[in-house]
Amino acid sequence: MHITDLDTPALLIDIDQVKRNLHRWQKFCDQWGFKNRPHIKTHKIPELAHLQMEYGAVGITCQKVSEAEVMADAGITDIFLTFNIVGKLKLSRLRELHQRIRMRVVADSQEVVEGLNEAAMGTGKPLEVCVECDTGMHRCGVGSPLEAVKLAEFVRSRKHLQWSGFSTYPTTDAALIFMDEGIRICENRGLKIEEISGGGTPGMWKLPEYRGFTEHRAGTYIFNDRITVSGGEAALEDCALSVLVSVTSTSGSDWVTVDGGTKTFSSDQYGQTGFGVVQNDPTCLLTRCSEEHGVLQKGETKPSFALGEKLRIIPNHACVVSNLHDMAFVVSGEEVVGQWNIAARGKLQ
Amino acid sequence: MHITDLDTPALLIDIDQVKRNLHRWQKFCDQWGFKNRPHIKTHKIPELAHLQMEYGAVGITCQKVSEAEVMADAGITDIFLTFNIVGKLKLSRLRELHQRIRMRVVADSQEVVEGLNEAAMGTGKPLEVCVECDTGMHRCGVGSPLEAVKLAEFVRSRKHLQWSGFSTYPTTDAALIFMDEGIRICENRGLKIEEISGGGTPGMWKLPEYRGFTEHRAGTYIFNDRITVSGGEAALEDCALSVLVSVTSTSGSDWVTVDGGTKTFSSDQYGQTGFGVVQNDPTCLLTRCSEEHGVLQKGETKPSFALGEKLRIIPNHACVVSNLHDMAFVVSGEEVVGQWNIAARGKLQ
Repeated sequence: MHITDLDTPALLIDIDQVKRNLHRWQKFCDQWGFKNRPHIKTHKIPELAHLQMEYGAVGITCQKVSEAEVMADAGITDIFLTFNIVGKLKLSRLRELHQRIRMRVVADSQEVVEGLNEAAMGTGKPLEVCVECDTGMHRCGVGSPLEAVKLAEFVRSRKHLQWSGFSTYPTTDAALIFMDEGIRICENRGLKIEEISGGGTPGMWKLPEYRGFTEHRAGTYIFNDRITVSGGEAALEDCALSVLVSVTSTSGSDWVTVDGGTKTFSSDQYGQTGFGVVQNDPTCLLTRCSEEHGVLQKGETKPSFALGEKLRIIPNHACVVSNLHDMAFVVSGEEVVGQWNIAARGKLQ
Repeated sequence: MHITDLDTPALLIDIDQVKRNLHRWQKFCDQWGFKNRPHIKTHKIPELAHLQMEYGAVGITCQKVSEAEVMADAGITDIFLTFNIVGKLKLSRLRELHQRIRMRVVADSQEVVEGLNEAAMGTGKPLEVCVECDTGMHRCGVGSPLEAVKLAEFVRSRKHLQWSGFSTYPTTDAALIFMDEGIRICENRGLKIEEISGGGTPGMWKLPEYRGFTEHRAGTYIFNDRITVSGGEAALEDCALSVLVSVTSTSGSDWVTVDGGTKTFSSDQYGQTGFGVVQNDPTCLLTRCSEEHGVLQKGETKPSFALGEKLRIIPNHACVVSNLHDMAFVVSGEEVVGQWNIAARGKLQ
């Protein structure tokens, strides 16, 4: 089936471009000796997690227990859950996951650690815990290298836990300074750090400058989007995720209406102008969105559109777009070659 | 079950407040003689569409064919679809809906009208069409009253269509001026206008000032949110939709982390500061969000939070929040009394 035979709006994944993106990053990680542990929050699709593993990922990263459950059910056996797991209900689900597969989690306080320790009790194997460090993002994590080491020692004192190292997001110059100091304190105390785990697609190609980090959790690199393009991590032609829309009104003078708005593209902007661009003509900008209407500015090289014409739009932020759609079409060139459920989206917890 | 027994994040609908909101608006419409045709894009839940009908709505409004299909399947028999329906696939679905229930649609060009005419051919009854008018929103619609009347005459000339009147969004002073002129031209040409349909929760209480309008399509009024509160249409205690979240990190000095970010609340702001407020303590603001983390500023009257503490957050924009969740819990006071699938969300088209 040709992509223009699809009804709209429809999420498209260019599988050939996905493979090029996976290959390029995996090769880079292998070359520099970093463990690649991709964050599946970007796609939430088990088939793509498996593809990342086939290309050489050591495991995957999830942000929610529900994501990890979907991925474990689909056969992924090594998951780093980079979110404080708190509360009886989630801890009991974490316990079940820990019994089934290799799980590593994070903690940023003694109270979180105590909950994890209780969850791992009687499972016959220690639960691996990284100390989450706030290296500048200020959304969670311990605030200083000394606190990080003290919490690591606390983890080590708990019977059912195994301390694995430090984690942070994103990997930046400030994170490097934090981890350098953490490593120094650990050395003074005779603590061996197994893993220093960072993340983020922005700046990922600078990873070799961040000595000490052993593992990287990139998410968006699988698809790329306008944000990664504007950050210089990828070119527009490296973008593998697009949304097929139709022109539904030509009543405007210098714009047309398409059948995708903030419920299709989200309202994430992160410094971008508008909400997306036409893939093969980036002078055509999706300038305004209401919930289901998108207003597309006519471009310099494309001054007119036909009613019903179908267009592929590259969104600002891939991770939130996949979260809005229940399924995606797999495309190769202009052909639809499959479809995948976005199985880990919309989960309650 | 008490709401704090729910895992988080979870979407909560306060059914008692919903009923108060429905009653207040329906009474107002009845008093002033407006037809109430609520827009279900705010909730996407068939049970709530039926409740709106029970309170006296003349029918509902949908923005997508897929929403209309879900609502028709659930037994709603009168739907206004306020989006240009374009393309063979959607037109054939519209045709099926038209054969099953009373459908009214919009059009803003002769080309759209021709597609509708063809879709209604052989169905044994005319398809009702309103001419969509661009009265200032500039996202679709004909641009002048004269064009609107000319397109109305074109609809009237098509064999399988029935012209129903004019529609626009939102209802504003500019819309009133547009419609006044449209009415004048119609009178000169001997055209009888059945319906002038406007919409929007902002400004809905000013509707009696907008003479000529016969029908109103409000969406958010069923729940209310921070945007309607800041617009003066409702008070914070009138908000019926909230998201239950847990405190998952207390590592910050003047903030805590909760387990809901832009994938739970969306990044819609529309002039609001932050992304939401704690329901019973609006000095606690959800100031920053990444995808799954929310950073909640400690409030003046609530200077501390316990790890695992559960909080109800009133979001900025209810319509996009319900679109992010697959299901909602129905609550009365602090008790969970049911749960509903958000059946019309995440549909492909």
